[in-house]
Amino acid sequence: MKFHQGKLQVASRQGLMEITADVGRWLAGKDVTQGLLTLFLRHTSASLLIQENADPDVRRDLEAFFARLVIEDERLYVHTAEGPDDMPAHIRSALLGVQLSIPVTEGRLGLGTWQGIYLFEHRHAPHRREVTLTLIGE
Amino acid sequence: MKFHQGKLQVASRQGLMEITADVGRWLAGKDVTQGLLTLFLRHTSASLLIQENADPDVRRDLEAFFARLVIEDERLYVHTAEGPDDMPAHIRSALLGVQLSIPVTEGRLGLGTWQGIYLFEHRHAPHRREVTLTLIGE
Amino acid sequence: MKFHQGKLQVASRQGLMEITADVGRWLAGKDVTQGLLTLFLRHTSASLLIQENADPDVRRDLEAFFARLVIEDERLYVHTAEGPDDMPAHIRSALLGVQLSIPVTEGRLGLGTWQGIYLFEHRHAPHRREVTLTLIGE
Repeated sequence: MKFHQGKLQVASRQGLMEITADVGRWLAGKDVTQGLLTLFLRHTSASLLIQENADPDVRRDLEAFFARLVIEDERLYVHTAEGPDDMPAHIRSALLGVQLSIPVTEGRLGLGTWQGIYLFEHRHAPHRREVTLTLIGE
Repeated sequence: MKFHQGKLQVASRQGLMEITADVGRWLAGKDVTQGLLTLFLRHTSASLLIQENADPDVRRDLEAFFARLVIEDERLYVHTAEGPDDMPAHIRSALLGVQLSIPVTEGRLGLGTWQGIYLFEHRHAPHRREVTLTLIGE
Repeated sequence: MKFHQGKLQVASRQGLMEITADVGRWLAGKDVTQGLLTLFLRHTSASLLIQENADPDVRRDLEAFFARLVIEDERLYVHTAEGPDDMPAHIRSALLGVQLSIPVTEGRLGLGTWQGIYLFEHRHAPHRREVTLTLIGE
């Protein structure tokens, strides 16, 4: 069994950003044929998720849904120190989560045909986000 | 440490389907006493989740909640290529996720007394769904 | 590669309870420098999640959001055997999930600066909750 751990830095802007290729490049340098790759986002106002990567309209519709579900209205929240997008970002991060475990098969990400890995930045302002990658396999 | 990877095929119909027994059968053939079993669904319009497996009303109430939360109304979405259930299926898949990591204890799934593993098919039409199982343990 | 599995008992009361220190203490006794720690909650009416641990208002706003999103009104549900908080607890558990995989780095939890691990008790009454910890690393 082999073990690898590393970091991925992502310069984010609000909305869904695909990071599948970045993760794939990190994995390509490792000597693991089959295994489990776990991504962990070290923040509480952004998320990691798997989504369809064919039609950009899916990203726009997802962003619009979360804008409706978790409204940016300061009257709803006590924690508003960093503006109207502060608490909604924490709630969206809780709902979508910050961690993904993906199988590695034949040395590559074992995603389905239409699946991509996305970082969802919930804050208005661009951020530097850090993802820890942990790979266990053989 | 031992490593096993396999596939589970699920013929789905809309709603929650319990797959605990199928996963348990796959696990039973492996020589792992304690470990971690990760399920990964290779699709973006269905989900994996843990839920109560005693009362079928829980499944019905969950399905009704998600029908209210993510409405099937094409006027809300741009991505409607495959009908009114297309984009709501992607949103429900994002909310509930496609991956579960479950402990293996004494050679069996370490679920709680009332927990079952479910595939939630979000599309109206039946589908063939594929789940990758990755087992690491000793 | 090393493998450890254990249990954490949590005496819960309704709302978000931070368990980062309890998890950290369990980890501190293990001889693993880098690895993957997976927490699994063996219940269907509570959740595990990562959230901001600096401002207690974030916890209050999260609890208020989920009270609005999943309403405790028995007329909405068929499964009401254990009272108005029964089915909403199952729905919140499905939405937020019962499992977290966290990297271990330099022998410690690889959380971000503002991240804490929380158990979210969705029932009104206090409960004894059990979390299985599975650690794989070197």
